Order: sequence, then C-alpha cells, then structure tokens
Amino acid sequence: MKKYVGIDIGGTAVKGILVSEDGTILQKSSIPTLATRPFEEVAASIGEQIVSLTGGERIEGVGVGCPGMVDGAHGVIVYNNNLYWKDAPLADALRQKAGVPVKVANDANAACLGECRFGAGQAYSDAALITLGTGVGGGIVIGGKLFEGCNGRGAEIGHMTIVADGVPCTCGRKGCFETYASATALVRQTVFAMLTDRKSAMWDYAQGDLNKVDGKTSFECAKAGDGTAQRVIDAYLHYLAEGIINVVNIFGSQAVILGGGVCAQGAALTDPLKKYVNANRYGGDRGEPTAVVTAKLGNDAGCLGAASLVMA
Amino acid sequence: MKKYVGIDIGGTAVKGILVSEDGTILQKSSIPTLATRPFEEVAASIGEQIVSLTGGERIEGVGVGCPGMVDGAHGVIVYNNNLYWKDAPLADALRQKAGVPVKVANDANAACLGECRFGAGQAYSDAALITLGTGVGGGIVIGGKLFEGCNGRGAEIGHMTIVADGVPCTCGRKGCFETYASATALVRQTVFAMLTDRKSAMWDYAQGDLNKVDGKTSFECAKAGDGTAQRVIDAYLHYLAEGIINVVNIFGSQAVILGGGVCAQGAALTDPLKKYVNANRYGGDRGEPTAVVTAKLGNDAGCLGAASLVMA
Repeated sequence: MKKYVGIDIGGTAVKGILVSEDGTILQKSSIPTLATRPFEEVAASIGEQIVSLTGGERIEGVGVGCPGMVDGAHGVIVYNNNLYWKDAPLADALRQKAGVPVKVANDANAACLGECRFGAGQAYSDAALITLGTGVGGGIVIGGKLFEGCNGRGAEIGHMTIVADGVPCTCGRKGCFETYASATALVRQTVFAMLTDRKSAMWDYAQGDLNKVDGKTSFECAKAGDGTAQRVIDAYLHYLAEGIINVVNIFGSQAVILGGGVCAQGAALTDPLKKYVNANRYGGDRGEPTAVVTAKLGNDAGCLGAASLVMA
Repeated sequence: MKKYVGIDIGGTAVKGILVSEDGTILQKSSIPTLATRPFEEVAASIGEQIVSLTGGERIEGVGVGCPGMVDGAHGVIVYNNNLYWKDAPLADALRQKAGVPVKVANDANAACLGECRFGAGQAYSDAALITLGTGVGGGIVIGGKLFEGCNGRGAEIGHMTIVADGVPCTCGRKGCFETYASATALVRQTVFAMLTDRKSAMWDYAQGDLNKVDGKTSFECAKAGDGTAQRVIDAYLHYLAEGIINVVNIFGSQAVILGGGVCAQGAALTDPLKKYVNANRYGGDRGEPTAVVTAKLGNDAGCLGAASLVMA
C-alpha cells in the first residue's frame, strides 16, 4: 500500500506522520518549531524529520499544512505572522531534501481536507470545516477537492463580516465572524453576562474568578439550569448559525464540520445549529438537509489532511 | 467559426441570441414568456425560438440562463418562484427540440460568466459579478469556470448575512446583503434620509414626491453638494463594500464586477469601493489589488453567458 508523509507546522511544534493511503497512521513525530530561526533552518529541520519518519521506506509524496497565507500552486508561504516568513519557498526546500513531490496548503485548509477524507466528512463531496478556537479557522472542500481561492487568497471564513460595524476584530475590521463565534468570543460573552448577573451559577462554577472562565462555563451551567448561562449560549449559537448559513448559502456545502475545543459540547452544540441552519438557509427545506457535525480526527486532522494533499 | 445559441429566461420575456465563438452576436430575438402557462408550453415556445434563431445554420449547443435554483449537472430547474416551475427538466425538453447539447444555469450566474468571458472580466480568471437591482444577484467564476455550489445550491451572495438581526429581507431572514446593497435598499435609505431632512436638495430633485425617488437621487444630489445625500451614499457604499470584502475574502476574486442600474454611476461608485476594499480585505495590500469595475455588456450579459455555458 502506498505511503505518504503529512506535516503540520505550528508555532511551537512541527508534527509529522507517516500514513498509508487508507489513512492508517504508521509513525508519528513532533519536533520543536523554534520559530525565531531563519526559514532555511526550520525547513532543514523539517526535512530531517521527514527522512526520519520514512525510516528509509518509499513514500509517494509529502504534504504540508502551514499557518498563514499559502500559495499552493507555487508551494510558497506568502506570509505568516507567527513564523515571520515571507514568500518562503517551502515546497522547493523540502523537495530537495525528500526527493518526492511536495505540496503545501494553509493548515486550516489541510485539516478540512483531512476531516473530509478520513473523518467526519467522509460521506460528503462538499463540506466546510469551521474551527472554533482562539479565532475561527475555515476550510472548504468542493467536489472532494480543497478550495483555497485564487492564489490562496480565499476561504477566510473567520474574517467574513456578519455584523457590519460590530465588535472589533484583531484583523483591524469590525464584526468578523470570529469576533462572535470563536472560543475567545464565547469566553468574552460569558464574562460579560456574569458581570450583569452576580447571582448566576457561573460565578460558582468559575470559583468566583473571571480568569477561570472558559468555553465550557456557560454550556455546563446552562445544563444545570442557569438562565443567564442559557442566554449566553443562545446568543452564541445564533451568531455561529448565521455564519454557518452564509457558508452554506455561498458554497452549498452538504455538511458543516465543527472543530476546536467548543465542539466537545457535541449535541448541545450541533442539535440547535442543525435546526436553525436548515430552517433558515436559502431555499429552506428544499433538497437534502445540511448536516452539522463535530470533527472526529482531533489533532491528527492537520497531518492527515496534509498527507491527503499528495494522495491521488 | 462555431456558432451557439444563448437564451435568457425572464419573467416577462425570453431573450435569445445566435452568437459566434468570439462573442459576436449574429441574431437576436425576444418572445413573451407568458409565465402562467405550464412548463411544457413555455419550453416548446423556447424550442421554436431556438430553431428560428439558427435559421437552419449548424450550432454547437444551446445555453440557457433561468432564474431560480438550477441543478446544472442534471439540467433541471429545481424551483422558480416567478415561473412556478418545480423540478422542471428544461435541458432535456430543449435538447429534444434543438438536437444539440443543452446546458442550463441560474441567470445571474450565467450573466457573470458572460461578463467574465466577453465583458468587464476578460482579464481575470477569478471574478465575481454582483448585480445591484431589486435584489442583489451574484455569480462567481473560479479559474475561468462558473461556480454554482453543490447541486446548484450556492453563490447566493445576496442572502449572505452582513448585519445579523438587521433589516428584514424578503427571504424571511434579517440583515442579508441585499437589504443593504440593492437598488431597492438605496431608494429606501434615500427616502429615510429625506424624511429626516426636509431641507435636503433631494426633495427638489424628486419634485417633492417620495414616489419619484430612485437610485440616482442621492448620487446626483451629492454631486451637487447636498450633505444629506452624501451621507446616504457613504452609508450605502460602506455596506456594499463590506459585502464585497466578504466575497473577496472567501473567493480571493481578482475582480468584482458591479452590474444593475446603480452601476451607471461609474467612478462615483467604483473609486471609493476600490479604495475601501483594498484597504480592508484580509491580507491588506499583499498581492495584486482587487479590481472593482462596472459591467460592460448590459442586457446582453445573460444571453452571452448562457451561450458560454456550451462553449469549449
């Protein structure tokens, strides 16, 4: 069976896998990114990691997921704020070391491809992955293939305006989807609600410490019957659903896969979203309902998706 | 030179052209739609129109633009509120009459393809057409090809939320792009502003009659120095730009082509949009600037784009 290497570059660690074409992970490794080093040094370390992962076995290719704006056609990292790379020829650098075809993609996009090929999206040709973390990452698969936008300049779902002139975003604009639907946003909304209701059970849950509020606080307290917590979740789900509907109306995705820490809430998250999205998407109940599911692959999605970039 | 027929189905008229592969229109015709007739009768009339357009000349194929949700892969009009069609096998019906390949697409999508192939988008592989009319229509071309979403369920740019919980839309939701950026929206915003400022020059321009307000009222009075009119335009362009930026961030479009009556304003419309979009798109000034231009083909875009559907 054919084998591939998938690499997922993060700000602190570079994770890698050796994987067979059916998605079975045969080897795993992780090396520190040491992101302050020059690009050439980081690339050389990743090259060694690839050689070490293969253990001399023949591989068909290497796929790499990397944060930032990626020009997949030319294998170049256009820019990356965390790694300080600019027009970095990553595919070329790794191809010289590995001696096999190398493809690169944005890491969120790669994770989407991984979930679609080997995880929660296996049943669909057209799906979107929306990752609810510090920000909102997104990936789009159309007809089984990753959609990256012209010159990799697309699929920036997190920075889609859903409330013009709304909450300020780190990108400099206002009202981006991620300022309402990220885990960070949920924490902010939770803290805000707690400050309006000193009697909410969320105060006990957080041991009276606003610094201890996280993405679970409102969900757990709502389950226990706290009305303020429930209102936090209702509002959060409302904005999240509005963004999901935009994605569905624009791409016609058959399924929306939610990733990131918040998706640990499972049905408490996906059931109300499924109902709202299908009732409010354009065209309503005509055609197949849109599935809303949680990601399955966890931290392996990035590496598996990266490897998928070079699978036939 | 190869010849094609392009058909643009409207609520009142069905327009058709015979066109050569370089986009030269050789024949034109228009027949009444008589939309209350059963689908079979309308299709039979269009079949006769096609035969009449060709005048016995050999054609390579027929492309058809039709309002509503269209399943291009199966040549079926899934539904259409104005023609009362549901799962109508339009391509099959016309193929039987014309004896050549027939493809169908949503009319706004077809117009986009027309502008990209023969009009304002000729220089670009990736462009979006945004038509500012009664509503906001949209079409997306990716890599020279029409993007219609999975099962034709996509590219519904007009019903992308840009102000969650905002102005009610005819689709039943709130805050859709078209409730802020359509010509209808501009008229509503103009009337609203006039009712807050009885001294605005717009009252004279409209001869004191709110019923005479149209998409030109605010633009013309702003040019003449009316501050209230200028504020209407500033706000209108702000929302229009927010929607355009969403499209650019999602598709990475190299160019956004504006169609519909409002685009008669030319540079007064496109210059401020170009500036705002390029300053505020994700990734800012990295890479080529996004072009914002007005459509060139006018009423022929639909037929030319329809014909393009069957061009190699």
